[in-house]
Amino acid sequence: MRTRDVPTLVARAREGDPRSVARLITLVENGDPKLAEVAAALAPYAGRAQVVGLTGSPGVGKSTTTNELVRALRKAGHRVGVLAVDPSSPFTGGAILGDRIRMQDHTTDPGVYIRSMSSRGQLGGLAAATPQAVRVLEGAGCDVVLVETVGVGQAEVEIASLADTTLVLLAPGMGDAIQAVKAGILEIADVFVVNKADRPGADATYRDIQGMLSLGERSPGEWRPQVVRAVAVKGEGVDDVVAAIEKHRAWLESSGRLQARREARAAAEVEAIALGTLRARLGSLREGTALSDLAARVAAGGLDPYAAAESLIKDL
Amino acid sequence: MRTRDVPTLVARAREGDPRSVARLITLVENGDPKLAEVAAALAPYAGRAQVVGLTGSPGVGKSTTTNELVRALRKAGHRVGVLAVDPSSPFTGGAILGDRIRMQDHTTDPGVYIRSMSSRGQLGGLAAATPQAVRVLEGAGCDVVLVETVGVGQAEVEIASLADTTLVLLAPGMGDAIQAVKAGILEIADVFVVNKADRPGADATYRDIQGMLSLGERSPGEWRPQVVRAVAVKGEGVDDVVAAIEKHRAWLESSGRLQARREARAAAEVEAIALGTLRARLGSLREGTALSDLAARVAAGGLDPYAAAESLIKDL
Repeated sequence: MRTRDVPTLVARAREGDPRSVARLITLVENGDPKLAEVAAALAPYAGRAQVVGLTGSPGVGKSTTTNELVRALRKAGHRVGVLAVDPSSPFTGGAILGDRIRMQDHTTDPGVYIRSMSSRGQLGGLAAATPQAVRVLEGAGCDVVLVETVGVGQAEVEIASLADTTLVLLAPGMGDAIQAVKAGILEIADVFVVNKADRPGADATYRDIQGMLSLGERSPGEWRPQVVRAVAVKGEGVDDVVAAIEKHRAWLESSGRLQARREARAAAEVEAIALGTLRARLGSLREGTALSDLAARVAAGGLDPYAAAESLIKDL
Repeated sequence: MRTRDVPTLVARAREGDPRSVARLITLVENGDPKLAEVAAALAPYAGRAQVVGLTGSPGVGKSTTTNELVRALRKAGHRVGVLAVDPSSPFTGGAILGDRIRMQDHTTDPGVYIRSMSSRGQLGGLAAATPQAVRVLEGAGCDVVLVETVGVGQAEVEIASLADTTLVLLAPGMGDAIQAVKAGILEIADVFVVNKADRPGADATYRDIQGMLSLGERSPGEWRPQVVRAVAVKGEGVDDVVAAIEKHRAWLESSGRLQARREARAAAEVEAIALGTLRARLGSLREGTALSDLAARVAAGGLDPYAAAESLIKDL
């Protein structure tokens, strides 16, 4: 592929050119030196889409549900972006997105952009890369962006919290209701989808979630998470999921929470980038002798590590 | 408990007073404001002990093995410190140290200090708190410090890498050999202990590990990880584990690696503290309006987050 300058790439992405969209997301994902320029060019498009996070344990049917949601959202006239985010650690490797292939259903639809992402060079990791990729898709005219993450661990919770609306997928008989509570998912979910609702145990899962939600206290005007049954593989219940998403969007706007959430998210994003930048600057000290000189003194007992850290910070 | 000044606490810990040792570790664990003073007072005692990391999946017998190792090391005339470190995330909670109670065997022995630790207020998390707690125990005269961590995840690998000598415990029939490779444990283990060696499958586990080790290339003079069989619950093989630890220590010294490892560790520690300090300073910006003002501009599309982060860093 030829290199293009950032203004041209952004202009083409604005016109809906899928290759320019892909190139911009790659720049973001790789922490390319042009990132600051890309970010500056994309800043005006911030906030144009409803960002919908979608998470759940492996095997609950995330890909199928995403696929069907895209279909339903397209039918309703939306332009849709999908980011499948893989927050797996460097130790476990990142080959868990093999079922991306199913999403090929939509590859010929010019109103859909689909992209897998992992954290590579990005300062601030996926917490910084994901909102930036969302902005690329917003720039390209998407008014809904689905951010799909695997699992219910801490990284996933963080990424889901970048969304305006967070969907948590569950499936019967996986002990997911309890898992959800343990992983703090209950606090971040705006909509629960009990997928595979035609399987034994689905009613129990539905009741478990409703039961847990009824335990939480809510002030008047607070959002009460919706619980929706679906059989995504048959397309059943998907319209109900879309309805729940739209209902949540309406509540976000009428309650004034959309603005508050987005400002909180922007703050978290700026902080993550700042911390990533500082981390990189510290890391670059490894190449010089300042850190190793300090470390030798600490190891020899001549300096304590807190005093050494202070001295290091002064060098930044 | 009465508050005491740091010099008095350190002096008493030096004399072997267990309550002063406990108080100092609590200060370290909580990220007490006196931490810098504690660190300065303890700096001279750095490097007095051999730090032995001990890790493995739940159920392999870590507590029993630690307990028996303490017994054997005491018999050999060592003063022994034990830090049982719980790196569990804030989301999953930290109640996995219930079996600490077994360690009560040694509570009346004045030559043994045992302590559970979790990451609370510490700048730099456990990566910074653990070496500092080790220094408390070194100050108290321990010449061996065992650092026990649960599991084989990334946090555990990090904490194990703080040790001079890292023991990885396995048990037959848990698929641990493959797990070990996946989690990067193979690279950090100096000694493998196949515990529960009287159970079916122990020989296969032993052969698996030996087989994997024979695949790795090693330069002449490199350490070849030892594999030891043990039945910790019966005290069997524990002397062999101690012998392997001592052999590794002798190799570290004769090869010059001890110094190199400790300087690398000190560098990592200083970096972790520096990053923690910077993170805390960023966090304290949340109380003011600088971050929220920037975030509001980013959310409104008037500023990109990278430019905002740069501006934030200038304020630090």
